[in-house]
Order: sequence, then structure tokens, then C-alpha cells
Amino acid sequence: MGKKKKVNAAILIIGNEILSGRTQDKNIGFLCNWLNLNCGISVSEVRIIPDVEKTIINNVRLLSRKFNYVFTTGGIGPTHDDITAQSIAKAFKVKYGYHKEAYKILESYYGKKKFNDGRKKMAKMPAIAKLIYNPSSAAPGFITNNVFSLPGVPSILNSMIENCKKYLVKGLKVHSKTLNLFTVESNISKELEIIQKKYKKSVDIGSYPFFRLGKIGVSVVSRSTSKKDLTKTNNDLIKFIKLKKIKILKI
Amino acid sequence: MGKKKKVNAAILIIGNEILSGRTQDKNIGFLCNWLNLNCGISVSEVRIIPDVEKTIINNVRLLSRKFNYVFTTGGIGPTHDDITAQSIAKAFKVKYGYHKEAYKILESYYGKKKFNDGRKKMAKMPAIAKLIYNPSSAAPGFITNNVFSLPGVPSILNSMIENCKKYLVKGLKVHSKTLNLFTVESNISKELEIIQKKYKKSVDIGSYPFFRLGKIGVSVVSRSTSKKDLTKTNNDLIKFIKLKKIKILKI
Repeated sequence: MGKKKKVNAAILIIGNEILSGRTQDKNIGFLCNWLNLNCGISVSEVRIIPDVEKTIINNVRLLSRKFNYVFTTGGIGPTHDDITAQSIAKAFKVKYGYHKEAYKILESYYGKKKFNDGRKKMAKMPAIAKLIYNPSSAAPGFITNNVFSLPGVPSILNSMIENCKKYLVKGLKVHSKTLNLFTVESNISKELEIIQKKYKKSVDIGSYPFFRLGKIGVSVVSRSTSKKDLTKTNNDLIKFIKLKKIKILKI
Repeated sequence: MGKKKKVNAAILIIGNEILSGRTQDKNIGFLCNWLNLNCGISVSEVRIIPDVEKTIINNVRLLSRKFNYVFTTGGIGPTHDDITAQSIAKAFKVKYGYHKEAYKILESYYGKKKFNDGRKKMAKMPAIAKLIYNPSSAAPGFITNNVFSLPGVPSILNSMIENCKKYLVKGLKVHSKTLNLFTVESNISKELEIIQKKYKKSVDIGSYPFFRLGKIGVSVVSRSTSKKDLTKTNNDLIKFIKLKKIKILKI
């Protein structure tokens, strides 16, 4: 085994219902957290696109070339607007049709009598796909090259995610330290910039305003794959915070 | 005034904190709803990207060419990681520096003594920009060509959004009708496909599973700029739903 490297991914949310505002997406936050914290895989880009075949094909091709992994959500159900599987097959120019194992799983789940055409459609996918098992509603997700296709319903996606793990090369974990300060951004922007420049090779410092206990504050978040550099950065931050007599909020 | 046309937009969320999973985005849903319902502007694509200058520049160029409007959120505060304004100036190859009106607004808001360098930074933007006034915390958003730049903090963004309206050409409003059915998707997929094909030129039908009152159901959503075609579609849907004796849930 070689040394762990940085591994990245893109998320592709497929669904008119998100773009129309009808449905509030819950999968982006979940996937970003899971990939970063559980797999050391950083998410480099997220896109939300409509249920349009050409758009899906173009985005799958582009993102799968650019990033180590792509996670798609949505469009793998039984209805006419579920076109993710066929679009991914076209994107990679591979055969699309009944996947034997998926067909078996669904047939035994529904029973032969209730296994109608709509349900059979969920067994259709790229011929080369590996399955992602679905413990909550049987219909499997699938992996085509480096593209992982999951359903759009958050509770079902959540139940399946651990089954993706064995197919993923894990990357260097990104560690983070947060300082919640009772101050405003403009009061610390100069010092933050100096410290960010000092550690620019290995640490990312972000600052995010918050409102808590009726007061305005700033969360200063440092992130790095190096625990050592993270500690150094944090010590430098604490030094100037104490000098400026800014209160640190313990939470 | 000519006849209203279809108008579209893209949303570009700029921020490492969303991609890392630390912060759950709340702006996408809000903007999608506001643009669709209040302006008749359909959102064609959403992207979430990191605070990286080159990435911001490339995305602003591409999306501003491809769509009628682009809405960016995030990266317009006083700290080192706020690089949206300078990146947009570079994307359009226009001058970046103090915007006189923005400078005046911020100076009078903070008072000359408290108007420090961090706060002054928020008056720096593309020279050609028009301002989007900010009733909650003064620092204005700005419009560069067809790109509207708003802050990342949801409550502040929400307070500013109405000030964008006068700069937007409104499009044809998309109307929608929803039928909530106590059935499963595979039971209605064939009929939905037939009706979708019949009205494919003007109506989009989507089907979305839901869980309510302990039961599984499907929301069938039809969307169209033509009220007449929407009613026809809905009548066709209700006809087969009654034939199949599927219960419609009134909510």
C-alpha cells in the first residue's frame, strides 16, 4: 500500500424538483459530510441539473474525467422522468439493459406477480455496472466506472451510503479546528490574512459570521491534512486573539 | 412591450464551507423559489464551487454566457477568503477598486473612526457594478453585466433579494398543479409516460415519492407556462387515477 493521497469527488444532483424550488435538497450536505469525514474525500464541485438526457450525458462525461469520483443522486426510479441510468450508459457508450443481479433482487423482493414493467425498469442500467445494495427499498444503486448513482429520496440514499465504502479509495483525512469568537470579521481580517499567508501551502483558513445568544460572532475554521500545521496555525490564531482581548466562545 | 419570453438563470454558490459539509446551504432553495415564483425565471443550473480565483473566473464566464442571469452567493465579506468581487472583475476584464457609492454607504454606516481596512474592502468591486442595497447590514451586493452578487449569510441575502427585482426582465410564469396520490410510482408509470408524451411540447410531468401519515404516496407535479395545457394534462391525469381507483390526498 502506498501513502495516502488527496482524493476528490464531484456531486451531481439530477432533478427538476430541486431547480423549481419545490423540493429542498438534503443530499448535498449529507454527502459532503460523509465523503469528507468518513472517507477523506474532498468534494471539489457540486452541480444541480435538470432531467434532460443531453445535459446529464455532458456533465457525467466532464465530471468523471475531472475528478476521482462522481456521485449522482436522483432519476433512478420507475417513471418516465427517471433517465439517469440510460444517460450514464450513453455517456460511457456502454450497453444499457436488464442487469441480471438487479433483476433477481427486485423479482424476489416484489414477487413474480407484482414485478410489473415500472419495477422492472429499475433493473435496467449500464451493463458494466456494479451494484450498490439498498437495504430499505431493494432497488439497487450502481457504479459505472468512477460514477456512483444513488436515489434522490434522502432516507433511502442514507441507508445505502455505507455500501459504497468498499469501492472507494480513501484519501488523506482533512482535520479541522474551529475558534468561535465574539467579534466581527473586519476586526480580525488583517491578522487572519497574515496567518493564512504564512501557512498557505497546507492550511485553509475560513471565517464565517454567526448569530448566537443574541450576539454577533465569527467562526474561524482552519482545515488541513497535516495535524502538525493545524496546531501551529491554531496557536498563532490564539496568540493574536488573546492580544486583542477577544472572547473565545466554548461550545 | 413585447410578449414575455422564457428567461433562465444559473446560481453559483461560492464557499469552501458548503463543500466541506460544515455549513448546510440554505440559499439554493430560497433563490430557486424566489426566481421561479416571483420573477418567472427558471433556474437551469446550480453549481457549488470553492473559494479559488481561477475556478470562480471560469464559472462566471461560462455561466454568464450560457444563461440570461447568474446569481452568486458568498465571498463578498471583509476577510482574505472573500474573493468574489475581484474574481468577477477579472472574469469580465474590468477595473476593480473602490466603488464611490458603496464607499459612502459603508462610511456613513460605520462612522469615519470605525471604517477600518476590512470594512473598506467591502466597498471594492468591479468599477462598472450597479449596487444591490442591503437593508440589514449595509454592505451592498452588486451587479456586473448579467451577474448578481449576493452575500452568503441567508438572513442578509433574504433581506436584499427584493432590491434585485427592478434589474430583472421577468419571464413567463411557470404554473404548476400537484396531485398527491396514495399509490406507488410503478403503479402509474405507464399512464404517466403516455400523458407526458401527449403534452411533451408544453408540459413537464414529474413524479416524487413521499411518506405521509404512515403511508407511501406519490406527488405528481405538472408544470407549464400554459394554464390551458396544464388543465388539460391534469384532467387526463385525474381520469386515469379515477379509473384505477387510486385515492387522491387533499392537503
